[in-house]
Amino acid sequence: MRASRFLIATLKESPSDAVAVSHQLMLRAGLIRQLASGLYTWLPLGLRVLRKVENIVREEMDRSGAQEVLMPVVQPAELWEESGRWEQYGPELLRIDDRHNNPFCLGPTHEEVITDLIRNELKSYKQLPANFYQIQTKFRDEVRPRFGIMRAREFLMKDAYSFHMDQDSLQDTYDVMHETYCNIFSRIGLNFRPVLADTGSIGGSSSHEFHVLADSGEDDIAFSTDSDFAANVELAEALAPAGERPAASQDMHEVATPGQHTIEEVSQFLKLEASQTVKTLIVLGEADEDGNQKLIALVVRGDHELNDIKAEKIPGVAAPMAFAPEGRIKEELGAGVGSLGPVGLDIDVFVDRSAAHLADFACGANKDGFHLTGVNWERDLPLANVVDIRNVVVGDPSPCGQGTIEIKRGIEVGHIFQLGQKYSEAMNAAVLDENGKQRTMTMGCYGIGVSRVVASAIEQNFDDNGIIWPEAIAPFQIALVPINMHKSEAVAAKCEELYSTLTAAGYDVLFMDEEKARLGVMLANTELMGIPHRVVVGDRGLENNTVEYKARRDADKQEIAVDQLLDFIKENVK
Amino acid sequence: MRASRFLIATLKESPSDAVAVSHQLMLRAGLIRQLASGLYTWLPLGLRVLRKVENIVREEMDRSGAQEVLMPVVQPAELWEESGRWEQYGPELLRIDDRHNNPFCLGPTHEEVITDLIRNELKSYKQLPANFYQIQTKFRDEVRPRFGIMRAREFLMKDAYSFHMDQDSLQDTYDVMHETYCNIFSRIGLNFRPVLADTGSIGGSSSHEFHVLADSGEDDIAFSTDSDFAANVELAEALAPAGERPAASQDMHEVATPGQHTIEEVSQFLKLEASQTVKTLIVLGEADEDGNQKLIALVVRGDHELNDIKAEKIPGVAAPMAFAPEGRIKEELGAGVGSLGPVGLDIDVFVDRSAAHLADFACGANKDGFHLTGVNWERDLPLANVVDIRNVVVGDPSPCGQGTIEIKRGIEVGHIFQLGQKYSEAMNAAVLDENGKQRTMTMGCYGIGVSRVVASAIEQNFDDNGIIWPEAIAPFQIALVPINMHKSEAVAAKCEELYSTLTAAGYDVLFMDEEKARLGVMLANTELMGIPHRVVVGDRGLENNTVEYKARRDADKQEIAVDQLLDFIKENVK
Repeated sequence: MRASRFLIATLKESPSDAVAVSHQLMLRAGLIRQLASGLYTWLPLGLRVLRKVENIVREEMDRSGAQEVLMPVVQPAELWEESGRWEQYGPELLRIDDRHNNPFCLGPTHEEVITDLIRNELKSYKQLPANFYQIQTKFRDEVRPRFGIMRAREFLMKDAYSFHMDQDSLQDTYDVMHETYCNIFSRIGLNFRPVLADTGSIGGSSSHEFHVLADSGEDDIAFSTDSDFAANVELAEALAPAGERPAASQDMHEVATPGQHTIEEVSQFLKLEASQTVKTLIVLGEADEDGNQKLIALVVRGDHELNDIKAEKIPGVAAPMAFAPEGRIKEELGAGVGSLGPVGLDIDVFVDRSAAHLADFACGANKDGFHLTGVNWERDLPLANVVDIRNVVVGDPSPCGQGTIEIKRGIEVGHIFQLGQKYSEAMNAAVLDENGKQRTMTMGCYGIGVSRVVASAIEQNFDDNGIIWPEAIAPFQIALVPINMHKSEAVAAKCEELYSTLTAAGYDVLFMDEEKARLGVMLANTELMGIPHRVVVGDRGLENNTVEYKARRDADKQEIAVDQLLDFIKENVK
Repeated sequence: MRASRFLIATLKESPSDAVAVSHQLMLRAGLIRQLASGLYTWLPLGLRVLRKVENIVREEMDRSGAQEVLMPVVQPAELWEESGRWEQYGPELLRIDDRHNNPFCLGPTHEEVITDLIRNELKSYKQLPANFYQIQTKFRDEVRPRFGIMRAREFLMKDAYSFHMDQDSLQDTYDVMHETYCNIFSRIGLNFRPVLADTGSIGGSSSHEFHVLADSGEDDIAFSTDSDFAANVELAEALAPAGERPAASQDMHEVATPGQHTIEEVSQFLKLEASQTVKTLIVLGEADEDGNQKLIALVVRGDHELNDIKAEKIPGVAAPMAFAPEGRIKEELGAGVGSLGPVGLDIDVFVDRSAAHLADFACGANKDGFHLTGVNWERDLPLANVVDIRNVVVGDPSPCGQGTIEIKRGIEVGHIFQLGQKYSEAMNAAVLDENGKQRTMTMGCYGIGVSRVVASAIEQNFDDNGIIWPEAIAPFQIALVPINMHKSEAVAAKCEELYSTLTAAGYDVLFMDEEKARLGVMLANTELMGIPHRVVVGDRGLENNTVEYKARRDADKQEIAVDQLLDFIKENVK
């Protein structure tokens, strides 16, 4: 491509409203422009990247045996009513009426449409398993679109849906998709992790998110130092500390702790580590027939955080988890939130594994302004329900049994999910089994945020000068930069020759052929745009039959003999 | 592709609500399924065709120097208000409010969005000309979607927009697009014509539609028998008949024609050819300051039809053209519609060129129940305004000066249009010229209905057995059909071998490998799906080391030696 015929829309200044690095660089390098909040136009440079990502996704999905389809963006409300989501889905589902006042929505996802299609098209177990995907525009009316295309309203997604006779077949395809996603993100050149994820309220049996590791990520991912184990922090199991609980060595004492409420205040006041104290958190139980919710106590070590998702799974705890109102606590338990403790508490108490492993610990005395020290389980109070209800922290033993936990931030770019029969049951999607009986299909779904992959690749690959594209998705592989081309016929002729040679050899070359463009500007632009390889052609080098080569990732430049350039490129450009 | 891993969704019966052949065959062959009125899902087979069309369009657009971008489907109302179309556009523009009650629409076209982008990105004449395109989902809320994807609400379109300093530059790009469209439709393998089209109310200087010729087309296209000339019938110029007008040879007579009103009745009654009579049509003039519209008479030969679009262009005639109410005609002209004529008429009279060439003709006498015969221009009445206001008919001399007119039906699949400054002026899209002055850009736009191309290819290529795809867009090039594969190891082995060989040689092969599929069904399916080449492998043939080959377009089958098959395919499959 000749720069003179290509829209290079680089900006000198970073737009003030862009917070995320990828958002700033996508604007500055001229990849995208905002049309309205959460709506972006892909400029020619950006679209080249998007298409390369899309093609890798398509090739690997095809290789996996999935079949590509294309479903409409606009979907009729009636299918969403059938699945129950017309009511459940919040305002992110943009609802519209057509000219005849029939209700439709802009598809944020396509479970309903594909389930409707497949219940009509597939009739027999012989046609299963089958996996269908599309790469298509989605719309989610985010309340606060941000970070550019990272959290846009309109975006490009690859979504796939698989159909099965049973769970074993689903598991097989799920495993194939897991591998396919690893292939996709590896080919793109991302540092990523498949991460065990929460199955949420859908209650499917298994789910993995694929996270690109980047400091700017919105999610905390827990890894093992010594294995492939990775899970969303919220989901990673916190094991019990190794060994037996230490024996009691102190007597229990009540201590006046006037004005000391937080763990920090109390532990400082008592001259104890926070890890030698416990927090007692009071949450609401499930409503009984009369709508009453009893109080339940959750006890975690003072230096640990309660994990809502784990807490919700305790039988009897209301979901979503909610803390009890302070007034009710005071009234029923006789003390304020900062002075609670498990000793003598007349409600159900659930104790985290680490808290249950303590001896001689401190806790609130259930009397305002007082705490207990030297408390010991099974001497001063019973220890009935020991559970895992805290977030893992760095240094915890990994639940896989190997190594310890490390935590990094990640950007979710993919998600695979065992849906089970949630949609097929609601929408009556069945096929005939071997005995001629109707059997509800089992489903999986598999998403990749194609446009988001572009942003996450930048979050992981940039420096002060701009983007550093992974080779596989770079908009151009090589920038060909002439020095004073309009003054030197030799430079112009050599550039034309190299442009022809490299293009003919199959490389994506951006030839900076704009007359009178300043060298400094051209070099800065090629760096900002992140083109992985750069060849500069000038009179001085040509006198010795050399050109200058620099890789975007490296600081060093090297002189390459002109007649060696193609071989050099073949060796260094994938 | 193995049929056992591919959704073959053929139907035996043609769905009763499908009228158009392409609609019927797209459903029957399993290319699409309806989701809701005017909304279709592309099944794997159909999507393969759509993608092939899309790729040809993209390659040729890239080759033309146009740059691909991708704009959002959802567009903010404010840009449409700026262009004035928020008010002008009818209910085909689907308007929506987002969750914050901001008004948006689903884009039926992207003039506003691209003009907004370019006015911000391009600053100097040095950056022009530039041509940007996208291949993207469009939505038009048709009041009555029909003919399947031919007139769907959601569809795939390639739209391009070019920007220029002046008309000459626009004309250059327009010519390049004209050639590019010819390349695209030729590569796809369509019988098409670029057709001069009406520029409508936009009033641009030039416009061509690209029509695929098919009996089912909605438009009448006029061609020259001897040249490339082609125009929408409504736009084709009707020349004056050759030679001088014949001399008068009869006297004018008033004849009683009781109860004879239509041209057919009158000419039969008078024993004249319809072409020896004239019709006098009364239309309304433009409203004056007081809102009054005077009457204007339009005279065409009895066997010709008035052309509204041409009539509207007569100075003084109201647009859109409207016939005068009968009561007013009777009152002001003294006779009913069936008895009018130009003789003695005291209003402006415009006479079509062919009517003006008549001698001794008949017309109404402006007296109910009477006609005049032997009427001659410039003897019995003046001949002031001779104009072209009729539709051309078969046999007319072609306006290009070569050959005569033929008329066929066409399906519009492309449209190129010189927009001029309609949008750039309204939206203030200007760049600096060589003298540093702001100059409003001149624009062109260029559309192809990508999904419609698929349907139109079918309308032009089918027989009783189904679709006959042009090679370039066939979903598969070759169908490989085994006879009793599950019973014959030799057939199974040979098919696997041929499948590997042909696939490795780069051909798109559909291997009908489903166990126990009946031969008749497989053959019918490959015909219905329109696969251009078919190879049948059976035990009987293999005994002589042959397979059976049949081209979809031909009735004949031929035996091909197995070891010659690849060479044969290379010769016969493009």
